Amino acid sequence: MSKRPTMQDVIMRLHEYWAAHGCLIWHPYSEKVGAGTMNPATVLRVLGPEPWNVAYVEPSFRADDGRYAENPNRMQMHNQYQVILKPDPGNPQELYLGSLEAIGLDRTRHDIRFVEDNWESPALGAWGLGWEVWLDGQEITQFTYFQQAGSLPLDPVSVEITYGLDRIVMYLQNKTDVWSIDVDDRHTYGELYRTPEIEHCIYNFELADVERLKTLFDIYQAEAQACIQRGLVIPAHDYVLRQSHTFNLLDARGAIGVTERAKFFAAMRSQARAIAELYVQQREQEEFPWLRENGQASRPTAPAAAPQDEAPAPTGPADFVLELGSEELPPHDVVDGIQQIQERLPDLLRRYRLDYHDLYVTGTPRRLVARVRGLAPRQQDELIEKRGPSVDRAFDDAGRPTRAAQGFARGQEVAVEDLEVRDGYVYAVRRVAGQPTLSVLPELCQELLDSLRWSKAMRWNSSGISYPRPLRWIVALYGQAVVPFTWAGVTSGRVSRAPRFVDAAARLQPGEFVTFSVADSAGYFDAVAQQGVVLDREERRQRIAHLVQETAASVGGVTPDDPDLLDEVTDLVEAPVAVLGHFDEASLELPEPVLISVMKKHQRYFPVVQASDAAGTTHLLPYFITIANSSHLAHPDVVRAGNEGVIRARYADAAYFYRQDTAQPLEHFTPRLATLTFHEKLGSMLDKVERLKALAPQIARQLGADEEQVETVRRAAALSKSDLVTAMVVEMTSLQGIMGEIYALRSGEPPAVAQAIREHYLPRFAGDENPASLPGLALSLADKLDSLAGLFAVGAVPTGSADPFGLRRAALGVVNNLLAAGQDFSIRQALEAAAALQPVEVSPEALAEVAQFVERRLQGILLEEGYAHDVVEAVLAVRGDNPTAARRACAALQALVEQPWWEETFVAYARCARITRNLEEQLPLNPDAYVEPVEHELHTAYLAAATALAEAPEPATVLGEQLRALRDPINAYFDRVLVNAEDETLRRARLALVQHIAALPQDVADLSKLQGF
Amino acid sequence: MSKRPTMQDVIMRLHEYWAAHGCLIWHPYSEKVGAGTMNPATVLRVLGPEPWNVAYVEPSFRADDGRYAENPNRMQMHNQYQVILKPDPGNPQELYLGSLEAIGLDRTRHDIRFVEDNWESPALGAWGLGWEVWLDGQEITQFTYFQQAGSLPLDPVSVEITYGLDRIVMYLQNKTDVWSIDVDDRHTYGELYRTPEIEHCIYNFELADVERLKTLFDIYQAEAQACIQRGLVIPAHDYVLRQSHTFNLLDARGAIGVTERAKFFAAMRSQARAIAELYVQQREQEEFPWLRENGQASRPTAPAAAPQDEAPAPTGPADFVLELGSEELPPHDVVDGIQQIQERLPDLLRRYRLDYHDLYVTGTPRRLVARVRGLAPRQQDELIEKRGPSVDRAFDDAGRPTRAAQGFARGQEVAVEDLEVRDGYVYAVRRVAGQPTLSVLPELCQELLDSLRWSKAMRWNSSGISYPRPLRWIVALYGQAVVPFTWAGVTSGRVSRAPRFVDAAARLQPGEFVTFSVADSAGYFDAVAQQGVVLDREERRQRIAHLVQETAASVGGVTPDDPDLLDEVTDLVEAPVAVLGHFDEASLELPEPVLISVMKKHQRYFPVVQASDAAGTTHLLPYFITIANSSHLAHPDVVRAGNEGVIRARYADAAYFYRQDTAQPLEHFTPRLATLTFHEKLGSMLDKVERLKALAPQIARQLGADEEQVETVRRAAALSKSDLVTAMVVEMTSLQGIMGEIYALRSGEPPAVAQAIREHYLPRFAGDENPASLPGLALSLADKLDSLAGLFAVGAVPTGSADPFGLRRAALGVVNNLLAAGQDFSIRQALEAAAALQPVEVSPEALAEVAQFVERRLQGILLEEGYAHDVVEAVLAVRGDNPTAARRACAALQALVEQPWWEETFVAYARCARITRNLEEQLPLNPDAYVEPVEHELHTAYLAAATALAEAPEPATVLGEQLRALRDPINAYFDRVLVNAEDETLRRARLALVQHIAALPQDVADLSKLQGF
Repeated sequence: MSKRPTMQDVIMRLHEYWAAHGCLIWHPYSEKVGAGTMNPATVLRVLGPEPWNVAYVEPSFRADDGRYAENPNRMQMHNQYQVILKPDPGNPQELYLGSLEAIGLDRTRHDIRFVEDNWESPALGAWGLGWEVWLDGQEITQFTYFQQAGSLPLDPVSVEITYGLDRIVMYLQNKTDVWSIDVDDRHTYGELYRTPEIEHCIYNFELADVERLKTLFDIYQAEAQACIQRGLVIPAHDYVLRQSHTFNLLDARGAIGVTERAKFFAAMRSQARAIAELYVQQREQEEFPWLRENGQASRPTAPAAAPQDEAPAPTGPADFVLELGSEELPPHDVVDGIQQIQERLPDLLRRYRLDYHDLYVTGTPRRLVARVRGLAPRQQDELIEKRGPSVDRAFDDAGRPTRAAQGFARGQEVAVEDLEVRDGYVYAVRRVAGQPTLSVLPELCQELLDSLRWSKAMRWNSSGISYPRPLRWIVALYGQAVVPFTWAGVTSGRVSRAPRFVDAAARLQPGEFVTFSVADSAGYFDAVAQQGVVLDREERRQRIAHLVQETAASVGGVTPDDPDLLDEVTDLVEAPVAVLGHFDEASLELPEPVLISVMKKHQRYFPVVQASDAAGTTHLLPYFITIANSSHLAHPDVVRAGNEGVIRARYADAAYFYRQDTAQPLEHFTPRLATLTFHEKLGSMLDKVERLKALAPQIARQLGADEEQVETVRRAAALSKSDLVTAMVVEMTSLQGIMGEIYALRSGEPPAVAQAIREHYLPRFAGDENPASLPGLALSLADKLDSLAGLFAVGAVPTGSADPFGLRRAALGVVNNLLAAGQDFSIRQALEAAAALQPVEVSPEALAEVAQFVERRLQGILLEEGYAHDVVEAVLAVRGDNPTAARRACAALQALVEQPWWEETFVAYARCARITRNLEEQLPLNPDAYVEPVEHELHTAYLAAATALAEAPEPATVLGEQLRALRDPINAYFDRVLVNAEDETLRRARLALVQHIAALPQDVADLSKLQGF
Repeated sequence: MSKRPTMQDVIMRLHEYWAAHGCLIWHPYSEKVGAGTMNPATVLRVLGPEPWNVAYVEPSFRADDGRYAENPNRMQMHNQYQVILKPDPGNPQELYLGSLEAIGLDRTRHDIRFVEDNWESPALGAWGLGWEVWLDGQEITQFTYFQQAGSLPLDPVSVEITYGLDRIVMYLQNKTDVWSIDVDDRHTYGELYRTPEIEHCIYNFELADVERLKTLFDIYQAEAQACIQRGLVIPAHDYVLRQSHTFNLLDARGAIGVTERAKFFAAMRSQARAIAELYVQQREQEEFPWLRENGQASRPTAPAAAPQDEAPAPTGPADFVLELGSEELPPHDVVDGIQQIQERLPDLLRRYRLDYHDLYVTGTPRRLVARVRGLAPRQQDELIEKRGPSVDRAFDDAGRPTRAAQGFARGQEVAVEDLEVRDGYVYAVRRVAGQPTLSVLPELCQELLDSLRWSKAMRWNSSGISYPRPLRWIVALYGQAVVPFTWAGVTSGRVSRAPRFVDAAARLQPGEFVTFSVADSAGYFDAVAQQGVVLDREERRQRIAHLVQETAASVGGVTPDDPDLLDEVTDLVEAPVAVLGHFDEASLELPEPVLISVMKKHQRYFPVVQASDAAGTTHLLPYFITIANSSHLAHPDVVRAGNEGVIRARYADAAYFYRQDTAQPLEHFTPRLATLTFHEKLGSMLDKVERLKALAPQIARQLGADEEQVETVRRAAALSKSDLVTAMVVEMTSLQGIMGEIYALRSGEPPAVAQAIREHYLPRFAGDENPASLPGLALSLADKLDSLAGLFAVGAVPTGSADPFGLRRAALGVVNNLLAAGQDFSIRQALEAAAALQPVEVSPEALAEVAQFVERRLQGILLEEGYAHDVVEAVLAVRGDNPTAARRACAALQALVEQPWWEETFVAYARCARITRNLEEQLPLNPDAYVEPVEHELHTAYLAAATALAEAPEPATVLGEQLRALRDPINAYFDRVLVNAEDETLRRARLALVQHIAALPQDVADLSKLQGF
């Protein structure tokens, strides 16, 4: 390409390309939409069975993304190029990559990756699975297999390709921002779009009148409803679009709380669903005309049958290789897939009586591979033994087989003389010869694949089968022979596909890809390696780790260990190459958590740090490392430059937020919390903060805080939620608390206050750290208990499937934090304090329900820690309110029940407990009434145990030995005396003593819950 | 072109074509717009001095045009292709025609015409002059030179080309409706657009909630205002667009009355203006960046200087030919231009002392031509004579010239001895030699052109000069020599341009045109004729008339005379060819006025009729005749088919309305008049009808109607406005009343009622017919007087520039109708009746004001009829309230004052009138007091005159002779008696007699207003 294409050229070429590939070229919609998806040409046409292929430009408006034109490529309006392919043509990724070549992008110069990104529109009731396509780190396209729209499942599935037109052109023209894009050889993008962009930002963020917008929303909804009732699809849809745009404006004005948001979404979703249903009805009434013309709606993704492959089956042990080739799997599915195959294949091989040497399973984003080494050529034979009639019935007196024996033998297909006699019965023993392995492997493979389960799977063709991403090919070789089967519409064979970087180098026609044929299973690994693929996952992982450290070292730094990131990156490439990028040192003025968060979350970059003092404190260097997908990068500078452009824009965005946020002290944000609804009956986030200001100090005192700590807690509570309305946190919610700490420090708050602000969100996920400071712990508990008490009171109780307020996590956090701190604490007391502050009445029943809800989390944790079920139950019956104490008791009790002497001890104790079980009265000890020495002996022993328990800092730890010491006196006592004596005084004295003994564990556990009681 | 292009192909080719011609390819707008003009890429970018060239598709929504997809090509949504060229490139028409070739239209096969069509958007404060482009009669494009937008004048002017994409494609694909257009080889237009079209129609016409829409409008306006105050151009514009769309919906729902409409428009216009001003300010603050880059904004339309032309000037009388070549002039401007040149050129030639033989002026839509035959090669010499000092001052006693004479001669540049003596003074007589004609013609031409005035003229380049359409070339030849001058940026020469049908045949490159060079003025007419142009307007007109009748005869019919239509068509072509088209006989079921109205108004077709009975009644035949612009039509069938397609769609539309309207009797429409506001203070049209039901019978009685006629009037009044809410009249307002009559008859109303309904609108324009029936007259007067009384009462008085309710026309109609009917009638009495029925108080002052307003119309008519000013004034002073009587009096009085004996008679009468002028008391005659015989004689003469006047059916007719008879007695009387006698009784008797004589004309005129009184 002699000249870099203008934006106009790019659009024209895309039009030509997609028109040549069967697409209708369509127009941007006559309403403000958030995405090309909302154009009826997508959101409606994907419904129903008819084929539909379309391409169009769509200026897309998202108020929230506005940056007053200060960001290089983030704007409230960006131009999308939208393509819908329905049904899946079988090679949509390759067609897409062909379109990039068509607009002048040389794939051999770039790193193009498909990175998991799923899409959901709560307003439209639509979702799909797919990827962001990264061009040298820049997200240039959303590629989605649409699974649902208007709350209706889609059949066939549509492929949606959404190009970020502005960014692609920016890249093609080698610009560092969209504003300098050459649109038509005469105008720059900035000349055409900058002023409107700034104006819209001012309007969206500062000017739009909230009350008027709300009225608009209501009117739009009412008109949409009228249209729906009249069966008018498009007019109704237009009004839903207007609702959606109005909602976005309200949101940009910060006028929508959590509950309101859900309500808005529900309203739009229900209308979107009604519209979708109407649309499908319309098409159905017209008898789906496009279906008629085009025949089968959903094309199979592979040739219907593989050509006959005549390679011979192995005659001795040979390797079996299975490769499941797909479009790029999400990283967790690579791991998950390997693990599932690893678990299930041995079972299957056993069930199929196939001997083998060993099993090896590995994978990359595009292939899951299993190798069964030394697989026997036949199944083992099977001995089938069946018991027949008893000997006396089987043989007559002469020892000749009776009719019964003959019938049995015939039924079992053995000769009557072969019946074996054992244990007084006759047996038919039959040897079933094993089948050739090749003939049973197809069924085994299908069973294996049928057994796989995925956290999120998708449909893509008419087979109805789900997989994390479309399965495109299967290699299944046993020795030289193909193991023939079809699954999910794909037929197995010996043809595999090359990695994408090989495709790129091959300069193919649009839609084509490079394949290679594998002669036999033994040669598979070499063949794949020859394509440059690092198939072994562990090898790939280590190579990446090595590349990263080597690259970091080249600029005098290191990359901190981050196994999660390393794992993810491992499954984003088939062959890793490290690229070191640099970013402007000026960005280092931003807080490191922000910089690192952006790198990892958005870009999967590895940060580079350097030790800054002897104590091992590190500081970030202005570098990042990205791992490209290639065996060799022909133009690393191009890839680096691209990635640098991305991080520049990302950091510009972060700097924009940071500037905005630090223009005023953190406490100035607090009043705006009034606009964030926490729950409609529980008030705003500001109301919650007010409650925390009262509750957190009480809880701090409950935790034994001194006055300075209490003061810290009070101040931290006042600021605890303020960062929620800062731009940075609105943008990256994961930085909540973290930004709170940073902004608090910048605002001159005491470090302890800042720390507590950050810590009160802990733990954020399973395995996360817990608050390290007492104020942090107090505030964290207060926040969570406030939510629990309030939300249970108003009935916002989590159900099996829905927990919108994250109450399970809150309850778990309460327990975990207390356990981590090792603090004794009465949850119920704190809950009562929290309840007293709610704006609604919290009934005793609700409070009991919360307490039980928290206790159940504690129960789960203790069980996970390995304590026996009865032990946990026994302890929780007594200490359910205090997790730390409960765990101590569990530890002690668990140790106890495992003692060899415990059973007898427990039997003795149980005698005391059982005999007084139904006694409601607490009887006083009365040694004066004793008449037998054993009574006095037991009394003395009891007193010793009671004293020991009372004096122990933790009675649980001494309970065992004390009970053990009582065993003999108890047994002696019961041997000699009749507790239920006729004399009442005597009887009451005896019962009192036994009752006191039964009560000895009462602060530790309810031993009656133990097994064997 | 081997294959007919799909709609998608056409768009792509237009994109390519206009991109290649320097246009930015832009996108449809993200709001519902009524036209591509409303996209900011037009309505804002045309403002200010910067160049701007852009092309884009624009789906355009006009609720009112919806036909539930029942019309072949009329829809509430149609696709426009919009091009803006700013500044005018000099050849925009040729570029446009090139684009038609580019999309596969072979111009040689078609009749393409530019038919005057001016454009105005009251909501946007925008207007321009231009054409509809007709392709075989089908309007396929709006071509406009934008003169104003956002109420700001445009400099430079922009060329706006708006293709009717759907219709063009329909035509290219040879389809008879848009629904069967092939969009992309896979989908028809109907498949993609029909269902949404129907749905929008249902929503727009039946469902949209009026109250909610009004709220939306208000909110949009408030938000727009906030944006304007903040200086935000695009957000404000978006809200104006939403207002506009909402307004269109309200209009489609019939919810907007006349006054409301004006208010809505004013509101939008004022915001549009504010936005336009803001936009220009923005660009100015940025220092008009595109101006910098592109240099001069407005390019001259012709080469700066013509090449040197060395042809020799004539030495003897020779012809001078001037051809003003332009883009297609509106027909009335061709006539107007010819007439102006005809009037002004002789004056100029005289002033320039140029002798010539004769002048001939003619023209076509593309050229105005003047030929001055036998123009002398030089100006006549000029004798300049100047009077100097008197002889006695000029010569001393010796007869020698004094210093005074010498100084005078020097000053006059004559020798002192050449001074001539005459009438006692000296004179300097100087002969100035005439200049060569060729040297003065340039100035003469410029003066001529500067003197032309047009009813609507436009700017198109930076010359600042206006002309009805862009002037593109000037041929100015005197003999062989070019008369060199430049006007409106165009330099004269000898090169003319061929007609468009020659361009078409020449298969040029885009933007090019055919020229031909003219050797000398004598050869001009042959040269033009050789191109096939019928230059002579009268010849063209006659040829068309002949062609039309000849063509009508070919199907056994005739075309009724219609000079207006013939005139218009004459100036729509440079060479006429008649094409006979046929339409479906089924359409003849529609009323003929509808069919003919559609033919003439929309298509300038000639209808064909046939005598249907001996009485000469005619009926319409299913044919039409159109006149194409060509010297020879290569493919008349194509042109015919195209035109037939047009009339088919038009009649389908009319049939659609007719069906809708006749589905119920006319009276059922009446209640809907409540939704049509007449005036906010005077209520709805229904309220007006209620008033007419009361008023019209009163007026009928005033006119002497019998009871049956009164009943007819009452019923006609009740139905008089009902057709206003019928679809047909909403669509073609000119059919109001006409449809009322037709629908009334169809509804079974008596013919007299139906006739009165039609007649009450008469006269509709100057020279129109008047009501023929008394009920029609009564209703017509009632309608007009109701409007006058009511609207004057609420202050809606016409001003010099504004008369939104057409009150001048109403008042004129009242007068004209009464004059035509020859009915005596007291307007004041009728006005008082009308006033009494108004919902507001009509003050005596207001009533007087109306009466005077009507009287002034009467005055104008009488003056126009040729009555002397004083005669009219004298009559109106007495009979201003009764037009018919006034006209009778004028006629009589005018005849009178022209009599030879009148002056003396009038002097005698005036003596009587003057002497009693200031006498307030009416004195009784008292003959008993007379003392002189002349007194008795005059008394007797007076009594005879008074009796004659009283007995005359029209005193005006006998007034003259009676006054004449009194002349002598009066003169004798005044000679003998002293009127102001000392004796009071005598004095009073004498004054009484004179006063009675002065009062004799009192029912005819106030003679004191006559000249000479």
